[in-house]
Amino acid sequence: MLAPQLAAVFTKLQTLSTSDHASVVSMNIFVALLCACIVIGHLLEENRWMNESITALIIGLFTGFIILLISGGKSSHLLVFSEDLFFIYLLPPIIFNAGFQVKKKQFFRNFMTIMLFGAVGTLISCTVISLGVINFFKEMDIDSLDIGDFLAIGAMFAATDSVCTLQVLSQDETPLLYSLVFGESVVNDATSVVLFNAIQSFDLTNTNPKIALEFFGNFLYLFLASTVLGVVVGLVSAYIIKKLYFGRHSTDREFALMMLMAYLSYIMAELFYLSGILTVFFCGIVMSHYTWHNVTESSRVTTKHAFATLSFVAETFIFLYVGMDALDIEKWKFVNDSPGTSVAVSAVLIGLVMAGRAAFVFPLSFLSNLAKKSASEKISLREQVIIWWAGLMRGAVSMALAYNQFTRAGHTEVRGNAIMITSTISVVLFSTMVFGLMTKPLIRLVLPHPKATSSMLSDQSTPKSLEAPFLGSGQDSFDDSFVGVHRPDSIRALLTTPAHTVHYYWRKFDNAFMRPMFGGRGFVPFVPGSPTERAEHNQPQWHPSKIHASGEKPVRRFMFILQITTFTT
Amino acid sequence: MLAPQLAAVFTKLQTLSTSDHASVVSMNIFVALLCACIVIGHLLEENRWMNESITALIIGLFTGFIILLISGGKSSHLLVFSEDLFFIYLLPPIIFNAGFQVKKKQFFRNFMTIMLFGAVGTLISCTVISLGVINFFKEMDIDSLDIGDFLAIGAMFAATDSVCTLQVLSQDETPLLYSLVFGESVVNDATSVVLFNAIQSFDLTNTNPKIALEFFGNFLYLFLASTVLGVVVGLVSAYIIKKLYFGRHSTDREFALMMLMAYLSYIMAELFYLSGILTVFFCGIVMSHYTWHNVTESSRVTTKHAFATLSFVAETFIFLYVGMDALDIEKWKFVNDSPGTSVAVSAVLIGLVMAGRAAFVFPLSFLSNLAKKSASEKISLREQVIIWWAGLMRGAVSMALAYNQFTRAGHTEVRGNAIMITSTISVVLFSTMVFGLMTKPLIRLVLPHPKATSSMLSDQSTPKSLEAPFLGSGQDSFDDSFVGVHRPDSIRALLTTPAHTVHYYWRKFDNAFMRPMFGGRGFVPFVPGSPTERAEHNQPQWHPSKIHASGEKPVRRFMFILQITTFTT
Repeated sequence: MLAPQLAAVFTKLQTLSTSDHASVVSMNIFVALLCACIVIGHLLEENRWMNESITALIIGLFTGFIILLISGGKSSHLLVFSEDLFFIYLLPPIIFNAGFQVKKKQFFRNFMTIMLFGAVGTLISCTVISLGVINFFKEMDIDSLDIGDFLAIGAMFAATDSVCTLQVLSQDETPLLYSLVFGESVVNDATSVVLFNAIQSFDLTNTNPKIALEFFGNFLYLFLASTVLGVVVGLVSAYIIKKLYFGRHSTDREFALMMLMAYLSYIMAELFYLSGILTVFFCGIVMSHYTWHNVTESSRVTTKHAFATLSFVAETFIFLYVGMDALDIEKWKFVNDSPGTSVAVSAVLIGLVMAGRAAFVFPLSFLSNLAKKSASEKISLREQVIIWWAGLMRGAVSMALAYNQFTRAGHTEVRGNAIMITSTISVVLFSTMVFGLMTKPLIRLVLPHPKATSSMLSDQSTPKSLEAPFLGSGQDSFDDSFVGVHRPDSIRALLTTPAHTVHYYWRKFDNAFMRPMFGGRGFVPFVPGSPTERAEHNQPQWHPSKIHASGEKPVRRFMFILQITTFTT
Repeated sequence: MLAPQLAAVFTKLQTLSTSDHASVVSMNIFVALLCACIVIGHLLEENRWMNESITALIIGLFTGFIILLISGGKSSHLLVFSEDLFFIYLLPPIIFNAGFQVKKKQFFRNFMTIMLFGAVGTLISCTVISLGVINFFKEMDIDSLDIGDFLAIGAMFAATDSVCTLQVLSQDETPLLYSLVFGESVVNDATSVVLFNAIQSFDLTNTNPKIALEFFGNFLYLFLASTVLGVVVGLVSAYIIKKLYFGRHSTDREFALMMLMAYLSYIMAELFYLSGILTVFFCGIVMSHYTWHNVTESSRVTTKHAFATLSFVAETFIFLYVGMDALDIEKWKFVNDSPGTSVAVSAVLIGLVMAGRAAFVFPLSFLSNLAKKSASEKISLREQVIIWWAGLMRGAVSMALAYNQFTRAGHTEVRGNAIMITSTISVVLFSTMVFGLMTKPLIRLVLPHPKATSSMLSDQSTPKSLEAPFLGSGQDSFDDSFVGVHRPDSIRALLTTPAHTVHYYWRKFDNAFMRPMFGGRGFVPFVPGSPTERAEHNQPQWHPSKIHASGEKPVRRFMFILQITTFTT
């Protein structure tokens, strides 16, 4: 889907270089603004309303305004936005990092619900929005849009923005909601790829069951093929690092190989016309499960933080740009003739987004709850409200798709198209600012005490937990995967009973075949100087109950405990 | 100097996108080849002849050959080389990392010699090569080159390639040679900027003393301004992180800020028409001296390895590309008419490079030795030979400058230009392969036992030393900088006596003003959970004599020692 965009990136970027020195000035200002976003975002961190993305948006808007004043109302942006810059450079690190640091246990336990939301939910939402748009726009003064455009609008606004979700929901505080909403946003990328292809290639005038079946088959193929590709590339990276770096580790090479192979998985997906987002997400999961445990301690610290930082910079870049781009004068000049229409279109779109999401979150949650036995696993009504709310944001992905659909050669000449672009910007700004600002307080209001079980069940083996890099595989002592026996007396096993069968067989398979082959926690052979060296000795003595949820302070303390244990045994 | 190139990058990259899917295929192959280079480079690491750059060159040549066969002799490269891609994305991380991990003590002790080599030496070499080229080319069958071209050839081939130097000389094994040759290659960037500007703007037909003075003044301004800019940006980053992150550290933000500000220093230098290479190099030095000590332990591990990895990937990228580009058929078709001329030109250039370098290394080493009192600090004749030899390589920088001078709009239409491009490729390939391959064995032959003093004097406070991140500022106990007193009884002070006066006053100034202001080793205020927390307590007990030169194994051992010390006190 993104292949044709590779071509356009260079064409569009060229407009950047109208004046040589001017582009150097632009780059300077942009990089300086990125720095400012980081510093101000840090200062505002304690603030209960703000988050980093909104800070970047506001700084972008403010800068755009100043540039608009200085340039005498001619331009408000420093760089020309290209959806391609976004899809080729900015999106892959964000999604890879999300997969790399997702709590795998939480994600796979809710796998069926996530699939339901991501595939069926997106379809429902798309249908509702498309029908609504067809209905409302006829009454408004908008011409030049055909049925394909309406369906594209549906697909565009049905997709929850994964980047926004990452910013608003906290994996540590509300792990269930995070995995549901974020997982949904990743899966619906595959759905939207199928939808876009369908809209562009199928004959939409006569719909019959065969086309629906073909559509379903396409989705299944795309989903499975993308997942398999991501998993295979991840496993190859684990195997290479495990085999080649035996006893002779090099942090630089390990990090370089992980980074390049993660990116390779993304562009390979593009090569085979699959969903790169889905592929790089699963590649991240596999790398954090196998590859990450095969490398040195310093590689673990480095990869964990470097991937997070790249993702963080890319996110800040996107929001800063979206803010700056919102004031682009060229897009607004068509709207001047009919400001009422633009406002009405934006309002209709926001309303439809809310209705479309409500149309699937509550029914599908009900369905999902039917399949669950224990009350603690069901999605409560309060949580459904949060899921509905937190998924309302539309971000850079919607912007990129809107540019793709409604701009020809970088200009928004047709009036209908211009109105759609400005409306998309309005929806993105409104949803990110208002829905985004309200999410944190809303969670505090609706869910005063997040489920205790959720945080207890949080997976400690992902790179996110800051202790892991220093502890090596020390945590395996409380993870039944290492002992290979399922202990029904442990509190965790009790809580996970409903889901334990699939999980149990996966564990057996993982221990018997996958880990000996690809490494992973506790299955890297003993080599002096290798990451597991110290941890192997400490397993029995070390007790996990003192693990601190997050934060940097505990690292030193645990290192200390570990060392003392080594000393006394 | 590089500002006009920003414009060209997008124009040239556009040729990449002749076919959308083809460019995705190219990217896939290129990233896969990068992975292959890393893996094969690792496997060949023990080999005494090979190094990573030569591996990448050979893989590039091999791939180029295969592509040439497949495409039926039409093309041999996947991506269109652009000097701008090189100057904007690939060079900054390499030079920044070199500054970040350079042994500062060694570098500044030899500062005058480095300046002599980098400025005066480059001028001598440039003059020799220019005169030689004018002399030889007249007899050969080469038209269409004017005096400006000849001087440009001189400047082009007078510059030692900093990227090659990093690959061939080892900072740990031969620190003196490394700092001299690499330092020279950084300083001569400033010289070549001035030379290029001079060649383009001054009236070269009538030279008088005023122009020479103006030239010298220009160089001095450029050198000082670039250095000051790099130092200021580095200090600002140290100050921001020290002030804002007090007691509340965030690794992702710290790393992002360091990365962005380092890049900012480079593009700011371009903004003010300074030498970006010099600026980003000094920014790296300041960041490793101050900023790096203000961040958390995990940030230190992350920045150290992430910067090294980015630099490593960029270097591999360059050499892989140069190898692939060498077989580009378009450049060679002009040469087919007169293969003898091209070979002769290449041979003459290589001969002139060797003569030009000999013309300044030996006389200037003699001058430098006159100023040194102790025998151990003088550059022996054997070392002079190595300095001469190791600086003979011409790499991607020469390629980029050749493209800049001899191609118009990406095509090498004029015969003289085409011959110069192919000759440059030949010189780069020959010098990198032959001189590069021979350097390691030559050092072993000429210098069987590298000076013991050199390795003893190596600066432990740079990020390169792998122990540092885990030790915090523990090493300060043997560093008089922390105690603030110059101890003449220590073995190190004895050895450094000749240079100690400047160093002593710098230390006093650093301790009295700079460190309290900008942080740095041992001067970050005590905050629970901050990087210095543990180290502050350990200083007196910890003895540095057991420090291992390099390698990853000692880390754990020292951590262990440290922890036990904490435990027992």
